[in-house]
Amino acid sequence: MGKFLTSRSEDYSQWYNELVVKAGLAENSVVRGCMIIKPYGYAIWEKIQGQLDRMFKETGHENAYFPLLIPKSFFAKEADHVKGFAKECAVVTHYRLKSDEEKGIIVDPAAKLEEEYIIRPTSETIIWNTYKNWIQSYRDLPILCNQWANVMRWEMRTRMFLRTSEFLWQEGHTAHATKEEAIEEATKMIHVYSDFASKWMALPVIMGHKSETERFAGALDTYTIEAMMQDGKALQSGTSHFLGQNFAKAFDVKYTTKEGKPEYVWATSWGVSTRLMGALIMAHSDDKGLVLPPKLAPIQVAIVPIFKGKEALANISAKVLPIINKLKELGISVKFDDRDTQKPGWKFAEYELKGVPVRLAIGERDLENGTIEIARRDTLTKETLPIDNVVEYVEKLLVEIQDNIYNKAVNFRDSMITKVDSYDEFKNLLETKGGFFLCHWDETPETEELIKKETKATIRCIPFDSEAEEGKCMVTGKPSHKRVLIAKAY
Amino acid sequence: MGKFLTSRSEDYSQWYNELVVKAGLAENSVVRGCMIIKPYGYAIWEKIQGQLDRMFKETGHENAYFPLLIPKSFFAKEADHVKGFAKECAVVTHYRLKSDEEKGIIVDPAAKLEEEYIIRPTSETIIWNTYKNWIQSYRDLPILCNQWANVMRWEMRTRMFLRTSEFLWQEGHTAHATKEEAIEEATKMIHVYSDFASKWMALPVIMGHKSETERFAGALDTYTIEAMMQDGKALQSGTSHFLGQNFAKAFDVKYTTKEGKPEYVWATSWGVSTRLMGALIMAHSDDKGLVLPPKLAPIQVAIVPIFKGKEALANISAKVLPIINKLKELGISVKFDDRDTQKPGWKFAEYELKGVPVRLAIGERDLENGTIEIARRDTLTKETLPIDNVVEYVEKLLVEIQDNIYNKAVNFRDSMITKVDSYDEFKNLLETKGGFFLCHWDETPETEELIKKETKATIRCIPFDSEAEEGKCMVTGKPSHKRVLIAKAY
Repeated sequence: MGKFLTSRSEDYSQWYNELVVKAGLAENSVVRGCMIIKPYGYAIWEKIQGQLDRMFKETGHENAYFPLLIPKSFFAKEADHVKGFAKECAVVTHYRLKSDEEKGIIVDPAAKLEEEYIIRPTSETIIWNTYKNWIQSYRDLPILCNQWANVMRWEMRTRMFLRTSEFLWQEGHTAHATKEEAIEEATKMIHVYSDFASKWMALPVIMGHKSETERFAGALDTYTIEAMMQDGKALQSGTSHFLGQNFAKAFDVKYTTKEGKPEYVWATSWGVSTRLMGALIMAHSDDKGLVLPPKLAPIQVAIVPIFKGKEALANISAKVLPIINKLKELGISVKFDDRDTQKPGWKFAEYELKGVPVRLAIGERDLENGTIEIARRDTLTKETLPIDNVVEYVEKLLVEIQDNIYNKAVNFRDSMITKVDSYDEFKNLLETKGGFFLCHWDETPETEELIKKETKATIRCIPFDSEAEEGKCMVTGKPSHKRVLIAKAY
Repeated sequence: MGKFLTSRSEDYSQWYNELVVKAGLAENSVVRGCMIIKPYGYAIWEKIQGQLDRMFKETGHENAYFPLLIPKSFFAKEADHVKGFAKECAVVTHYRLKSDEEKGIIVDPAAKLEEEYIIRPTSETIIWNTYKNWIQSYRDLPILCNQWANVMRWEMRTRMFLRTSEFLWQEGHTAHATKEEAIEEATKMIHVYSDFASKWMALPVIMGHKSETERFAGALDTYTIEAMMQDGKALQSGTSHFLGQNFAKAFDVKYTTKEGKPEYVWATSWGVSTRLMGALIMAHSDDKGLVLPPKLAPIQVAIVPIFKGKEALANISAKVLPIINKLKELGISVKFDDRDTQKPGWKFAEYELKGVPVRLAIGERDLENGTIEIARRDTLTKETLPIDNVVEYVEKLLVEIQDNIYNKAVNFRDSMITKVDSYDEFKNLLETKGGFFLCHWDETPETEELIKKETKATIRCIPFDSEAEEGKCMVTGKPSHKRVLIAKAY
């Protein structure tokens, strides 16, 4: 049936790639590094989007839309930004094709642009060029805008959802009168991301500052949420940047204070992307397929009738229909799969592969007994219930499954955090166990670079909750005042 | 205050441009032909999107996402399609920039793509290239996909919302086993658009077939909804295409029938775009600003307190707060504008400009009298109500306003439909009155071309409800069997 997956223990990477395709989430396209997000994958993304959008609006943000294309010269305006973003990107140089007798359709050489455009890899430059016109006085601040958009970065090595040339994301871009307000905003949004990850994705994350080397190009500080995948590798799942006045200076965006003084505006930006889909898949799923937290599952309950012939199906349907209606009234999404083209066993495997949290099965004997079979995707356990209790039971079970998936992820993540003080031990455990390491580091980019070069591990963040602790850098022995979080990462 | 608009009678086109900017809907960007959709404009677009998306899902469609870039060669595969779309478009030729000592940031000549990519002007080609892999048997059909996306067409003359180089839209792409099913789907979706326009946008539209000349490039039949603007020009507001087997043949997409026979798949595509924003603005608004139908208004009720000093505001707020809560419970969006930086008169003008359907004003004297002032944006009338009735009154009033705006638009549109039989009369009335004309036409492209050349009017559609009627083409005198709809159009 083509449903069987390579197991995680056999080849984690292969398991992931197969799962993404077989569960109908996405597939590679003919366009280099770009994926096609299939309906089932997109339905999960819509749930992610919907909830994040509500959270952004609750925190006072509005959506807007800025152009896809950015004039090449804009990238030269912020010195650090250009280094980070104006390299591997898609460049639009012409605006017309024409027919050629010999070669067919060709690019019309007469239609060359005076200045090339870049497909946005991120929108700070075009947005700050716009904010220049929106901001005159302190009364115009803050501006709290978000954009849902596609962006493009010409990645050399791509993997569906985790790293693709084109991806979907949201980018918040805010403008503030003071440094304090901008830092507060950037901090607020990394907390929104963390809340979303834990409460909706059932994914615990560690919040912290990026090291200087790992900061966003153009930021004074980058906050990150770091999640742990089942193979012991970290996944950066969202970032929020305090941009200082860098973009305001680059695009000359000043406001007049209450006292009538001109000042540069303070900025933040923050984003999460379809990469969250990768995090969701890799954090919870198993060798039978996806395991979706109920809050993000497009189908929360699948009902499979077990029948021979139309009459049997009609009897079962009559019994099941009121249950479906009650579940729907509770806001639970239900699929009643009464296809006669597939057998129940095939359907069971299908809903396991697709990570449907709860599966109900009901046959003729159940009708006689007044029972129904209920199966949980997270634990793969089954039980038989009196059918009259099923609605109430399912409602509670969905909450329990959400909690259970989260707790399991927390326990796993916690088991994968190791404190080490010796570099040798670090290198050894990194290979044998993996996961997060809390280590002392001398805060120099040189040591950071050395660790990366020798072990491929990187400093994921300096956790917000990292306590003051005197110690010695595990590599150089120089003094250190707190531990940082290190891991191999996607 | 910069709020005053050029009047429609003075310069309709100027009125529109000013309104779009002053109401905070959109502005032009530095990128050629691309606009920035500002938060208030985007909030309306989100309401449009939300409702259309519900209607698509109710009719069985799912969302998906396909790549932004399309290989150049794909356009050559469908002969008619290439003529229509592969001309004025953004071409990506390189994938890297680099620093140059003399010139700053330049396009790296070493990073030239082997095959150029086109930024999608529409996605039939990339989607049908994908469907090839999704479709083997009749069991895989129908495929009912929709995509919300940005697209780009290098337009020479642009106007915000009406015609921009980049715009936002949705494009439905469906695949069917039979011709009948595909025609049914294309027909169903033009009816969905028509329902949406009348029930949500308060905009009556005329549905019909496009003439052969005006068909979508690659379609066998194009259905359209045509709306009438206040200046007597038509606006094509949405189209749905029966594509036959053209794309299936171009991309070799076959399915096996129940009988085991290979057959080409039948296709439709259908789309509406941010152009709907232009239709919404131009159909209803007046010289004081936007007039928004309540169902699409981001703010349905604005409440303006009239006060001097903090105590007065506190008294008013205490009275108003329970009203706000009750309105919100009914799902009505309310803005309580208690800013002390602007005067009531300024706020009244602001909400008129922004098209807020209902405005409540309450001062200290109202508190004494137990009254509140209520103003309707559509009729610009005011009355004073007992404050205890206001919630119930507002709820009913929003429905009444939605109906009134619709009825007004229907009456106007109907007054702008003229039956003419003489070409001279047609030419005369086209200039003096404008609007839609129902005329006999000999069904030849030559006559269609002549009318367009001589009058700038085009055949908008052959209405679905055009009755059989024997007549003579108003230009050539040749026999005709029904009337077609002709107008100047945006």
